Amino acid sequence: MIFPKSNSEGIFIFPSSRGSIEMITYDLRKRGSEPIYVFLYKKLRDDILDGIIKPNEKLPSKRTFANNLNVGVNTVANAYDQLLSEGYVYSSEKRGYYATDMQRFHNIKINTSAPEPVRPEEEPDFFMDFRANRINLNNFPISTWNSCMRKAILDGGDNLYKTVPYNGIPQLRNAISAYLYRNKGMSVDPELIFIGAGTEILLRKIFELFEKNVGVAMEETGLKTLAKQADKLNIRVNVIPGDDDGMDADLLGETDSSLCYVMPANRFPTGRVIPIKKRLELFSWAYEGDERFIIEDDYDSEFRYSGRMIVPMYAEDTKQKVIYLNTFSKTMVPSLRISYMILPPVLAARYKENLGFYSCTVSSFEQFALAEFINSGAFERHINRMRNFYRKQRVAILKELLSSPLSKVSSIEEHNAGTHFLLKIKTKKSKADIYDEGISKDLHISFFSDYILSDKGSPGYVTLVINYAAIVADKIPEVVKRLSEIFV
Amino acid sequence: MIFPKSNSEGIFIFPSSRGSIEMITYDLRKRGSEPIYVFLYKKLRDDILDGIIKPNEKLPSKRTFANNLNVGVNTVANAYDQLLSEGYVYSSEKRGYYATDMQRFHNIKINTSAPEPVRPEEEPDFFMDFRANRINLNNFPISTWNSCMRKAILDGGDNLYKTVPYNGIPQLRNAISAYLYRNKGMSVDPELIFIGAGTEILLRKIFELFEKNVGVAMEETGLKTLAKQADKLNIRVNVIPGDDDGMDADLLGETDSSLCYVMPANRFPTGRVIPIKKRLELFSWAYEGDERFIIEDDYDSEFRYSGRMIVPMYAEDTKQKVIYLNTFSKTMVPSLRISYMILPPVLAARYKENLGFYSCTVSSFEQFALAEFINSGAFERHINRMRNFYRKQRVAILKELLSSPLSKVSSIEEHNAGTHFLLKIKTKKSKADIYDEGISKDLHISFFSDYILSDKGSPGYVTLVINYAAIVADKIPEVVKRLSEIFV
Repeated sequence: MIFPKSNSEGIFIFPSSRGSIEMITYDLRKRGSEPIYVFLYKKLRDDILDGIIKPNEKLPSKRTFANNLNVGVNTVANAYDQLLSEGYVYSSEKRGYYATDMQRFHNIKINTSAPEPVRPEEEPDFFMDFRANRINLNNFPISTWNSCMRKAILDGGDNLYKTVPYNGIPQLRNAISAYLYRNKGMSVDPELIFIGAGTEILLRKIFELFEKNVGVAMEETGLKTLAKQADKLNIRVNVIPGDDDGMDADLLGETDSSLCYVMPANRFPTGRVIPIKKRLELFSWAYEGDERFIIEDDYDSEFRYSGRMIVPMYAEDTKQKVIYLNTFSKTMVPSLRISYMILPPVLAARYKENLGFYSCTVSSFEQFALAEFINSGAFERHINRMRNFYRKQRVAILKELLSSPLSKVSSIEEHNAGTHFLLKIKTKKSKADIYDEGISKDLHISFFSDYILSDKGSPGYVTLVINYAAIVADKIPEVVKRLSEIFV
Repeated sequence: MIFPKSNSEGIFIFPSSRGSIEMITYDLRKRGSEPIYVFLYKKLRDDILDGIIKPNEKLPSKRTFANNLNVGVNTVANAYDQLLSEGYVYSSEKRGYYATDMQRFHNIKINTSAPEPVRPEEEPDFFMDFRANRINLNNFPISTWNSCMRKAILDGGDNLYKTVPYNGIPQLRNAISAYLYRNKGMSVDPELIFIGAGTEILLRKIFELFEKNVGVAMEETGLKTLAKQADKLNIRVNVIPGDDDGMDADLLGETDSSLCYVMPANRFPTGRVIPIKKRLELFSWAYEGDERFIIEDDYDSEFRYSGRMIVPMYAEDTKQKVIYLNTFSKTMVPSLRISYMILPPVLAARYKENLGFYSCTVSSFEQFALAEFINSGAFERHINRMRNFYRKQRVAILKELLSSPLSKVSSIEEHNAGTHFLLKIKTKKSKADIYDEGISKDLHISFFSDYILSDKGSPGYVTLVINYAAIVADKIPEVVKRLSEIFV
């Protein structure tokens, strides 16, 4: 005699004597808004997982099951098909559907309950964030950018939807080449330009072009994140001491570095320029080895407030030993993730050969829009406007600082370039206390030592990075007042 | 007695007796359209580099030089300032400007000549590219996407221009969480979602969360690019043999793998589903170790042509051991580089702590537009439309293939899902010959063996990947005809 057993609903299942189930009943009223086949699929799945429907037991035939539930045969067929697709049942041609044997895994519970929706999150904001590279909305030519995006959609056609070439769309690379020719005296084959979603991604690709654990020389004011991640990046960072002009080239030569990372136009975060003599020393180092290259990060060079742009080392190089890096996150808006690099021909060929399978990391749409923005002249107009805006911001905040109580206990290091300067303040307070006091005044304080590899700070002093790109002019007196209150 | 020397223009420089230059003359008519100060700066620079102006020689005073050239004092001052900025001269307060000593580097030539503009490039195209994930322009709801982009610009306000949080903007993470809840039965805290410019970038970040040389298990049909790059990625790939259901979990357990990479809904490139029994084996493996996690790449799961979407392992998991990966490049357009991953809480915390300094790699603008596209329901409508379109494409090309001469020498493997299938063809031709014949017919042939880690192809057969997402319906007969001609 065979006893009925109760399923996930407490309704009886009647097994037949031949290892198959004569009938299963589910209460279809409980399905809510779910389609019947989905409800059936879930009920059967749960009963198979719970062992109520036994391993290798045969399920009722579609027709019988459908008649019993008073639904169409197709509904049952759909539920069985889904169970079959996901492996809860197996079928034997023309003989029916059987429960999969999962006895071995009865200790493993899988989640079959309906999930809960999750509450959306919000993000905090500061009165002034010295750290973040935010810009004032009024400075970005929204309507022009908007019309470039519309033009990209209209003119892009099929090209907009194709897989992006590994080095970026030719239209943007051509536009960048022409821009660099017009503005920086650089003659660049667009085939050597590579587009990427940020400098970090491009740097990583550069490192992948070299042997594992390649030596990368950088100044003490080099990118702290690179040094922190060196092991993950398969590089060894050789920190080279130097002076105000840059790293000591003799010491550089004594290391086994293949790459030398520099910011010749505007060294971060001090803003100094690498002078020609130091550049010649670096060229001299690079020209002495086949696998020696200079990485020139030109990220901030557009913003200089006297004279013309500093000539990039790329333009001075006669032996194709400079890898050039720049970003539009700085010149356009921080939220636009488009950077580019220029590789020497030997490295561009190596990239194509070894890394050409990587997808380009920037959407073609934004590449088209940016190409249009550059080609229309809007980019150069924007740079000029921003240069004037930053020049005014710089003067306004310097003036405010010099007439504030803070001026008595601080000194400024700045070189007429970039969008930040250093403020060295005499204080006995710890960095942690200063940071906390800043937060209590709704200021996000940024320390020089957070950016450099080795903190050579003088005792009794702390150096802040004052990024003035985002300060709204009206807020400057209040920002300086709050900052003063921390120290004076 | 002191002799005059000729400068870069053949014009005499008159040195004085006291190590300073009394006068230099340049022919200003030769400057073309350049500002006078730029012309002067370049001339002086070249003469200093060439040693015509000697190391430490004093330049003429601004006033004398200006009088001699018949230009304003400011013009000379601007030229001197630029030389000073770039380090060609140094100044001694109130005493004047002196040429920098660069004698040590007279063997290093730097490039000072005017560059040439470079000719723009074009890119080639194919009648049919089986490899590339292109889509037909008509399938993408351009006007809806366009209006989402416009809405993003109008509503985004300041948020559009802020630095993007490291894990993506909350609006998009919230929209994805709600979408996954509605469509895949997944309950996901938006704080656990991470936005990135492509799956490759997210995979790399996952690996960075683990010890160096972490073991990553994958099937023989796993991502070939991962295996190729394992060393650069700081991972060891453990290729686990298996059967039609997936990798052998016992063999998996014998390796020291921490991560197990699978495509449960649609294994690439065969299109099979990982059945529940195999999933339980994998869960069983993952639940046995603190540092064991399953990477679920769900990239193609939206496209199934019968029944409902396959339940993701993420939704089945009860112990937060699944890292979930998906991309919008597949569901939207290949040229949109937006992917996302969901990390288990323990790994999300580790990410924030160790990798939170990385910038998000997707522009905020496209994140806002996509959030709007999802929230408005347009994304789900688009998926449904694409599913219907691909279903028709699939039927059309299968029908054409089955009635073509190719059907006599080929067999098809496909599982009612994804946007491609495998075509196994009996042939004596080599892959290289087939590829070349394809190119001559303007077809870009794609081989199964290009995607898998170990080619277990049968001799006398070749297996092609037929990606039908991009074939224009009208072209199908011609594409199949050209393909047939290669083999029959």
